[in-house]
Amino acid sequence: MNPVRSLKSLSSLLAAMAAAATLGGCATGPAGVLPAVKEMGSFHVGGRQVTLAGLPEKEIVYSPGSPPQRLNPNGDFSVEQMYARYTRLEQPKGRVPLLLWHGGGLSGVTFETKPDGGAGWEMFFLKEGWDVFVSDAMERGRASWARYPEVFATEPVFRTKKEAWELFRFGKAYATDPAQRTAMPGTQFPLAAFDQFTKQSIPRWATNDATTQKAYDEYVEKVCPCVIVVHSQGGNFAFNAALKNPSKIKALVAVEPSGSPDPDKADLTPLRGIPMLWVWGDYVGEVPFWRSVRERQDRFMAALNRAGGQGELLDLPARGIKGNSHMMMMDRNSDEIAGLIQQWLKVRGLSR
Amino acid sequence: MNPVRSLKSLSSLLAAMAAAATLGGCATGPAGVLPAVKEMGSFHVGGRQVTLAGLPEKEIVYSPGSPPQRLNPNGDFSVEQMYARYTRLEQPKGRVPLLLWHGGGLSGVTFETKPDGGAGWEMFFLKEGWDVFVSDAMERGRASWARYPEVFATEPVFRTKKEAWELFRFGKAYATDPAQRTAMPGTQFPLAAFDQFTKQSIPRWATNDATTQKAYDEYVEKVCPCVIVVHSQGGNFAFNAALKNPSKIKALVAVEPSGSPDPDKADLTPLRGIPMLWVWGDYVGEVPFWRSVRERQDRFMAALNRAGGQGELLDLPARGIKGNSHMMMMDRNSDEIAGLIQQWLKVRGLSR
Repeated sequence: MNPVRSLKSLSSLLAAMAAAATLGGCATGPAGVLPAVKEMGSFHVGGRQVTLAGLPEKEIVYSPGSPPQRLNPNGDFSVEQMYARYTRLEQPKGRVPLLLWHGGGLSGVTFETKPDGGAGWEMFFLKEGWDVFVSDAMERGRASWARYPEVFATEPVFRTKKEAWELFRFGKAYATDPAQRTAMPGTQFPLAAFDQFTKQSIPRWATNDATTQKAYDEYVEKVCPCVIVVHSQGGNFAFNAALKNPSKIKALVAVEPSGSPDPDKADLTPLRGIPMLWVWGDYVGEVPFWRSVRERQDRFMAALNRAGGQGELLDLPARGIKGNSHMMMMDRNSDEIAGLIQQWLKVRGLSR
Repeated sequence: MNPVRSLKSLSSLLAAMAAAATLGGCATGPAGVLPAVKEMGSFHVGGRQVTLAGLPEKEIVYSPGSPPQRLNPNGDFSVEQMYARYTRLEQPKGRVPLLLWHGGGLSGVTFETKPDGGAGWEMFFLKEGWDVFVSDAMERGRASWARYPEVFATEPVFRTKKEAWELFRFGKAYATDPAQRTAMPGTQFPLAAFDQFTKQSIPRWATNDATTQKAYDEYVEKVCPCVIVVHSQGGNFAFNAALKNPSKIKALVAVEPSGSPDPDKADLTPLRGIPMLWVWGDYVGEVPFWRSVRERQDRFMAALNRAGGQGELLDLPARGIKGNSHMMMMDRNSDEIAGLIQQWLKVRGLSR
């Protein structure tokens, strides 16, 4: 064996291996493969203990073939926590984690695989090199929920398919028969996946805002500094979380936020250091509810900027991007919109 | 430069890189890094549409600052679906995906990060090279739940901390004051993480078994052939899913299953081709409920084996592994138990 020839072949093998695996790990794989994942995990954060008393006893068989058990529903319970699942990369390009906060009547599933089977925003931002956290707000999904009226004051609200169809601007008029529904002309929402989308619906309460906020505030304390990308009902929680912990939030992207603090009452100067982007889809002016929401948000953004803030607008139709529903992270062009958000974050130095 | 000396140092560098990255990409990274992930995603499966009518209207403000909306709670709803989240590896060693099915009053979080912050079984089996699916059963977590009594027949059951403490064999007697609780002697459960564990509790129904089963059956149809590792209440669903789709389930590991089909009524011969392992923790004989469950399960396993089945027992205390609670995937020695399961699967040729 000639050591010099062996050295050459070893060198080329080494080069091939170095191409496949960058030094210190394996930062990026072939197309469709995620950057090297350091850790995936989840946790609950926030919440408190309540003690219930005076409720009557019951007898329950939990699974067929198992003996009956006497159930005393009174006692101590953990309530009002929230849930988050995270993926941390070996070599993140994002300078801080990116948190995805869902909207009303939904859970973190909003950002996972799209109802039509395509990759959602969680995957988009992971592939862009962010550590990504996806949460379920207090009362939703894996965060769990508590007895009412004993812990939550009222009964929950269940979203009908009609409300989802019309409120999320998939179409103007819902009908049980899909053939009878009217769709927004040129919609980017994959209408054939509408039924699949409605399986993501989670009951909600209209009286839990204070406790939902409290859990979000503890979540921010735990995992930030961070960037927050928030949708719809989550907007109000994110703006309030930013007011409480302005130094911890490095940017806030509000995707069609449905609420915000009252700019006539709140001092918005603490938000001055936080770049903020409002993203709006199509047909907003055609639906009275969204026209009103948009007007309020524009007033909030103007007040923020008068207070020295950094509010910016990404009006998709004005940029020539037409047909986006309220659920734009599930629309056919979801990657294009995420790409604009990514570019905006990158320009602000938040991603390498 | 002496080529022979360089060859030696290159060889050792090459060996170090080969240890960090196997040929053909980057199948395994350094300690703490996952095998290369091809795809992560989630989906809902199963369920049906229901139409509700005759319920009174309401007026609701969804988020502060947003206009009030008139709510008609009647209409079409998607109900009774279940949820699964998966991680597929670039180069899986498991010959089929491994599905983790949780128990009663809990969700897929059971298998994620442990309440004490350690890595759970999802991570263990991913690092062993399996494509891993973690689901939330119908009515739990991200699967969502439906109105009662209109869709679900009864009201839900909320688990008290006392029930969790005593039923899961962390200790014999719960007290609100942690200092007053009695723990099982030598328990492997991290008692300091008990409150964190109870945040994982999810309300359950005692009257949803048929629809839960239906969703599990559709889940098996969609993602199997597979291996199922099932816990507690999930056991009955997994045994029944195996009876319906025996060719799709390559092995079934039942971790303290609480129920199963009645061996005097069910024909168990379809299960003959499926290796099955029952795993039992400690203190089972000391708690009347579990003593009774264990007796029934032993009878079921014996009936299975009389029918030509392949039921095997992994009794941890009999193997000298002491102190395991019902939540053994969260116990301090959870990796040791998962390792025994992994070894059992490997011996059966299900993992390379």
